Amino acid sequence: MIKKETSFIDLKQVKIDDPFFSRVQNVVIHTMLPYQERVLHDEVSGIRKSHVIKNFRIAAGDEKGTYYGRVFQDSDLAKWLEAVAYSLTVEANPELEARADAIIDLIGRAQQPDGYLDTYFIAAEPEHKWQNLTDCHEMYCAGHMTEAGVAYYQATGKTKLLDICCKLCDHIDRRFGREAGKVTGIPGHEEIELALMRLYQATGEERYRKLAAYFIDERGRDPEFFHKEAAARSWSRTDYMDKQPPSYMQNHKPVREQDTVEGHAVRCMYLLTAAANLAAQNHDEALMAACRKMWDNMVDRRMYITGGIGSTYYGEAFTVDYDLPNDTAYAETCAAVGVCFFAKQMLEADPDARYADILEREIYNGTISGMQLDGTKFFYINQLEANPGMPTNAYGEEEYTPERIGWYDCACCPPNLARLMTSLGSYVWSSSENTIYSHLFVGGTATFETAGGVKIALTSKYPWNGSVTYTVEPEQAGAEFTLAVRYPGWCHQMQVKVNGIPVSGAVKTDKGYWMIQRSWQPGDTVSCEMEMEPERVYAHPMVRADAGCVALRRGPIIYTFEGVDNGEDLQTLRIPREAKIEVLPYQADLLEGIVALRVTGCRKKTAVNPALYAEDAAPEEVVTLQAIPYYAWCNRGMTHMRVWMQE
Amino acid sequence: MIKKETSFIDLKQVKIDDPFFSRVQNVVIHTMLPYQERVLHDEVSGIRKSHVIKNFRIAAGDEKGTYYGRVFQDSDLAKWLEAVAYSLTVEANPELEARADAIIDLIGRAQQPDGYLDTYFIAAEPEHKWQNLTDCHEMYCAGHMTEAGVAYYQATGKTKLLDICCKLCDHIDRRFGREAGKVTGIPGHEEIELALMRLYQATGEERYRKLAAYFIDERGRDPEFFHKEAAARSWSRTDYMDKQPPSYMQNHKPVREQDTVEGHAVRCMYLLTAAANLAAQNHDEALMAACRKMWDNMVDRRMYITGGIGSTYYGEAFTVDYDLPNDTAYAETCAAVGVCFFAKQMLEADPDARYADILEREIYNGTISGMQLDGTKFFYINQLEANPGMPTNAYGEEEYTPERIGWYDCACCPPNLARLMTSLGSYVWSSSENTIYSHLFVGGTATFETAGGVKIALTSKYPWNGSVTYTVEPEQAGAEFTLAVRYPGWCHQMQVKVNGIPVSGAVKTDKGYWMIQRSWQPGDTVSCEMEMEPERVYAHPMVRADAGCVALRRGPIIYTFEGVDNGEDLQTLRIPREAKIEVLPYQADLLEGIVALRVTGCRKKTAVNPALYAEDAAPEEVVTLQAIPYYAWCNRGMTHMRVWMQE
Repeated sequence: MIKKETSFIDLKQVKIDDPFFSRVQNVVIHTMLPYQERVLHDEVSGIRKSHVIKNFRIAAGDEKGTYYGRVFQDSDLAKWLEAVAYSLTVEANPELEARADAIIDLIGRAQQPDGYLDTYFIAAEPEHKWQNLTDCHEMYCAGHMTEAGVAYYQATGKTKLLDICCKLCDHIDRRFGREAGKVTGIPGHEEIELALMRLYQATGEERYRKLAAYFIDERGRDPEFFHKEAAARSWSRTDYMDKQPPSYMQNHKPVREQDTVEGHAVRCMYLLTAAANLAAQNHDEALMAACRKMWDNMVDRRMYITGGIGSTYYGEAFTVDYDLPNDTAYAETCAAVGVCFFAKQMLEADPDARYADILEREIYNGTISGMQLDGTKFFYINQLEANPGMPTNAYGEEEYTPERIGWYDCACCPPNLARLMTSLGSYVWSSSENTIYSHLFVGGTATFETAGGVKIALTSKYPWNGSVTYTVEPEQAGAEFTLAVRYPGWCHQMQVKVNGIPVSGAVKTDKGYWMIQRSWQPGDTVSCEMEMEPERVYAHPMVRADAGCVALRRGPIIYTFEGVDNGEDLQTLRIPREAKIEVLPYQADLLEGIVALRVTGCRKKTAVNPALYAEDAAPEEVVTLQAIPYYAWCNRGMTHMRVWMQE
Repeated sequence: MIKKETSFIDLKQVKIDDPFFSRVQNVVIHTMLPYQERVLHDEVSGIRKSHVIKNFRIAAGDEKGTYYGRVFQDSDLAKWLEAVAYSLTVEANPELEARADAIIDLIGRAQQPDGYLDTYFIAAEPEHKWQNLTDCHEMYCAGHMTEAGVAYYQATGKTKLLDICCKLCDHIDRRFGREAGKVTGIPGHEEIELALMRLYQATGEERYRKLAAYFIDERGRDPEFFHKEAAARSWSRTDYMDKQPPSYMQNHKPVREQDTVEGHAVRCMYLLTAAANLAAQNHDEALMAACRKMWDNMVDRRMYITGGIGSTYYGEAFTVDYDLPNDTAYAETCAAVGVCFFAKQMLEADPDARYADILEREIYNGTISGMQLDGTKFFYINQLEANPGMPTNAYGEEEYTPERIGWYDCACCPPNLARLMTSLGSYVWSSSENTIYSHLFVGGTATFETAGGVKIALTSKYPWNGSVTYTVEPEQAGAEFTLAVRYPGWCHQMQVKVNGIPVSGAVKTDKGYWMIQRSWQPGDTVSCEMEMEPERVYAHPMVRADAGCVALRRGPIIYTFEGVDNGEDLQTLRIPREAKIEVLPYQADLLEGIVALRVTGCRKKTAVNPALYAEDAAPEEVVTLQAIPYYAWCNRGMTHMRVWMQE
């Protein structure tokens, strides 16, 4: 029977102390969150206006003014608040908490007596509330606020925002559902579903789980729901959404019957996060089977090697199997963040390393590529090939920028990254009564209630080095439990020793974890040596964009080539199959500390024959090339970049 | 001093009798023109409505109704009439001529007393005449009508349409210019310039040459002209054009100072056709130098191997050097037709085979790919890689179709092809006082005034066979003149014999023509043997889209691979460098008669490893592949297609 086999432990139980992610968290907490706070207050000049706090002040009646921004602008604040909540757990900050409390007070003032909360409709179009579920994002904003409320409550114990969100969700509960007198609506952009599941899990209130189940079950029952809604109203904020096919909003058939990831990638991930959570909670085999099929379709056919999903700008969407263009890749930062949410839910129901492998791929590659190393600039689109100087209209519109920028009109990505990175501790470990799972090799300590209480310290220089050591401190000497250590999919050879003695291969299960079951004594160590050789990686031959090409990977890190290291016009380069890949020593002063790869390649000479077409292939010269981690690209100015290199 | 070194002979002096183009002309004259006539009369069901004749009838007051279609719809009729004129020279057809005369009468009734003629503004917005030069195409339509008028006069000797066009151009002349009381406007879409040059050359009226010179000289003097025009009017038909940068309309700097082909590709070609004609006519070295620079930029950096230009859907435009994507190629049929116009003018000023090589590339590849072999369906966009099943929005909007279709809302391409193919005879030969140039190896006969009168018959099985024979019949035995026979750029070995005796290599000039000067006797023969081996062709290493790829060419024909012959998913195929290319015998029953190529290649097995990313490249199997001429693709149903194959 499907159920939660294991549960990720609370953020409060984890302390990250990791050579890689401590730096990232530090940047997020000390640069990115304060920067985003100033953006939300419109205190940063030279970037696109946010106006988010102002919108709340206008809705609250604190000041006069006109709403400005996208209809879902409220969610920027909610995601920031959620990230702040996590950051307060990582690192107390009474001043920040006080400012967050003040903002929560403001949110409370903006909320209407009936629980409704959406500053766009309160301030700009009160007569149109709940009439355009297709595009107006009211439940999307409610969902994000609810996630913030749950997080803030869990971090601080304060219930004010949680209460606001319960009131808001109760308002939604009164309006939507299949019961008599309710409206059988569903939101155009999923988010409320996963938020309701979190609210249910935080409060124990069954009605939130039931409401989440309603939204999930209702989706796809009437594929024409959104088109009918559009036809029934006399106004439209934009006709773009009204023209989308039902699959754009995952409404083409009931969720249980879906077997491919379709439509807007972020929507799809948020839906599946909720669906997998609900399926495990409700022992719903059919729903979980659909989640698994969609996971497999995504990972086996529709995901970039960096973890990016949603390959096209048109609708920020999935297209068809194996369609993964590199230069026009969309691969929205938010969508990669969404994969982490989905993976976490799948792992709870089925602790299989294949989910953790993808989670790992995301956190070291396709998510953090969305932020500049210093935390002040962001990518919305994560290309796998950059060709500065091309007309930008070939790549979609405003979201495309050849370099990271300070803010976006549609600023969903920066705070999404902030909340993922500040809550990273809650993705590392899960536990059940008898088993502790180590999913990610993120250093630090964690405490568990398993077997009467256990503390584990993990030390490593991951991802640059494959040595990882666990030091186990059970509260009761001799406590019996299993420490499940992931055998990463990228690793060909992993040796595990307990107190220096190799464990036999037999302890490894077929789901990719070493199941180390024993009576643990204080100070017991588990040390792992993962062979971390650089590898050539090939895409499936059905992927047109990668035909004839190779990518480099070492451990969880996907590498890329930049013009700044290798000369521009990277298509003139080739990495012959026999070329040996050299691992350079860790360079602390390069890109905030990386391990680069060096390889001998060939460069086609561009000046020998100026003809556009010739009967002889251009002659080549031997060159030494350097690859850097993909996430760190575009931190040394605008430059060409290419993950998939000609072979 | 720049001047017209040679002039293409009149269509009436040429009779095409060619195994390749006689079939094409037959299809155009007996299927395509009657089909298009029925379309213009709205007598074809199941395709997009034309309404062109109706628009003229409404403008003429013959019937009541509302204008329908694009603002430049009149030009569809003009181009059809022009093609009809050429067809009447190729093959008399009194019934067709009578119907054309009736249409010309209708056009005359629609023309206003002051000479104005544009059915959109006459019928729909008379108050807005001449106020939106940016986008409203009044001069574009006038130009096409003028080309038709000249052609119809030259074909039939009838002056009615020519008179209509003179009256129309005089109307334009009264309105536009730098003289006091005139408006210093220029058209957003060039065409009037080349038409005025033709009208000047047909009538000898200097004012038309001067007006053409005004429009060419005025362009780029004020790069903000179109933006200022937009700002000055309170209405706009569409804001799309008003947002375009000046380079979109070749208005970014004076034409003489331009050195790269920019903006909308068709506009650019029409401008350069007029500019090259004017430059030679006016002995304008500076203008010709600019034309040469732009030609070189186009051919050396911005042209597909098929002759396609304008690589992006966005603005149907040129982008930047070496940006030639294959799957999202735009390569509009009209733009390839425009290259023929431009090449013809360049050849007259400078009979250099490099211009004729491109002209040849266009007529055997990138133009006629725009029509189905049976002449009833058309491509607007000529991709070099087709992947049916992809979402079409990735390829631009309505102009993109995975198969040729019967008509387009914007139906510029089908009649453009019709007029090129019916007038093909006028692209084959040029002459001056002492020299006859044979630019294209299109079989048939031609008569020249050179040296007191000469008739030449050309027989060949070109493009399938490199043997070509000229039989020369001077009116006066012993007439002295030079027969200049092109040595094609694609050919490595060409032997030329006069009356069976090889001519020495010394007669070949550095401009790619064999200059065979002698006293010609009736029945003298010149026989040419061009080695026509299949060749591998490589793109310049700066072309990203073709990195690692090879294309096949034989003679003037560019080859391509279709899924119907080779299995779909053509990116799984590879043609190793050492693979021998076999020339199959001519197959009369395949694709209306072609020579196919056969090559041994490799296919990556797609079913061995389902993983999206793997450390081993997929294993390969040896396969036999068949390539067909590019122009003939998509005549056996919807299928994958690829010109550039992995090597």
